[in-house]
Amino acid sequence: MMNNMDGLDKLLKPGERLDELHRNNYKIIQNTNHFCFGMDAVLLSGFAKTFSGERVADLGTGTGIIPILLEAKTPALHFTGLEIQKESVDMARRSLILNKLEEKIDIVEGDIKEASKLLGTASFDVVTSNPPYMDQSHGLINPDMAKAIARHEILCSLEDLVRETAKLLKAKGRFYMVHRPFRLVDIITTCSSYKLEAKRIRLVYPYINKEPNMVLIECVKGGGRNLVIEPPLIVYKEPGSYTDEILEIYGYK
Amino acid sequence: MMNNMDGLDKLLKPGERLDELHRNNYKIIQNTNHFCFGMDAVLLSGFAKTFSGERVADLGTGTGIIPILLEAKTPALHFTGLEIQKESVDMARRSLILNKLEEKIDIVEGDIKEASKLLGTASFDVVTSNPPYMDQSHGLINPDMAKAIARHEILCSLEDLVRETAKLLKAKGRFYMVHRPFRLVDIITTCSSYKLEAKRIRLVYPYINKEPNMVLIECVKGGGRNLVIEPPLIVYKEPGSYTDEILEIYGYK
Repeated sequence: MMNNMDGLDKLLKPGERLDELHRNNYKIIQNTNHFCFGMDAVLLSGFAKTFSGERVADLGTGTGIIPILLEAKTPALHFTGLEIQKESVDMARRSLILNKLEEKIDIVEGDIKEASKLLGTASFDVVTSNPPYMDQSHGLINPDMAKAIARHEILCSLEDLVRETAKLLKAKGRFYMVHRPFRLVDIITTCSSYKLEAKRIRLVYPYINKEPNMVLIECVKGGGRNLVIEPPLIVYKEPGSYTDEILEIYGYK
Repeated sequence: MMNNMDGLDKLLKPGERLDELHRNNYKIIQNTNHFCFGMDAVLLSGFAKTFSGERVADLGTGTGIIPILLEAKTPALHFTGLEIQKESVDMARRSLILNKLEEKIDIVEGDIKEASKLLGTASFDVVTSNPPYMDQSHGLINPDMAKAIARHEILCSLEDLVRETAKLLKAKGRFYMVHRPFRLVDIITTCSSYKLEAKRIRLVYPYINKEPNMVLIECVKGGGRNLVIEPPLIVYKEPGSYTDEILEIYGYK
């Protein structure tokens, strides 16, 4: 989806491309040599809920995909994306200019491990994150450091993320995360140890007869322990053919 | 499915009935005024695995449905069912005589809270349970005490069950339980606190587009935290019509 619109040349640097987001005519700048957003970020934007007047922080925002999609889809007042990789911060900020979202979304350069210091304790109604999935003992570490940081818990562990999220959130604040099902025990026990109680889970199954490969989870700070597991989210009807729900989340219908 | 086979009269007491189990020609004695087994017990018998030579304990065995089905389906050496309600113990023991299973299955009358004292610490490879689902703050308490004990945590809490299971199991022993998805956070955190780590979960969805109403879970004593979530188990193709997998688990095909 390379795109050479007039006046965009100065917004795009070498190796970068512009992708359509199918929402509000928004676009996003990405660099295929870095980490590009995947279905997980899009599904999280379809799972997370925000309400009027709410402040939202996205931890490890990358090129800003989650705040940009959530701004298009939900009514929150303001979004703050925190990202440690300078090139991603730079792309995200240029995407905000391109979409005229500078008033609605801030991108802060910094470390998730210091999120509460950087963004303020008890100052958000909602935290979202599409964090690295792999702990350091799992999976091949990508030799490209930018991709490795996005995929592996090199700079930030699950516990770092959960601890900072618990600090950032107000009482009864909500945490939305997309992750891998094989980490669900870690996720639930770690969140629970910081009083973030899982309230809503949706499993994403590539096909109806396959194991799920993503989990969407909502935790509430200081919530009770009753959980709702939602109907399965099935990605493909058949190979190459998305289900209607996936097309709707992507904004194709 | 009332059944008046010759010689069975003396095995059945007033109000009791005999149900076919579609496995090894086994039958089970139940009393509809008490708690009768449901789909949850049958699905647990399709989810749990045992291997040759293993010893299995079923906690809160009721009329013995889980050990009887597991004896038919899996190769374990011996099963012990623990049950606190005298009438259920009595029915279970008569079902064992009827099925000639007295050598393979023992029914012990007693309290789950004292399971490790009654049955021995670190003496089982596998523990199974279809426990009461509701904590005492949830749901209407059934005015029939026999049904209430089977459904509500009146005599035994989730934590009692998990603590005793952890004591009964040998190192790396396996715990199989069927429960309600809304309790999954409680289940995972409670099990984890007793070093029973969830390793395999299967969610049972009544229909493909509905919330799951049962969860099947396997924990391993002293296991790691990597979890496999299996493909969804769908109960109905359409109203009144079971899926092939359900028919297979019930032994109808």
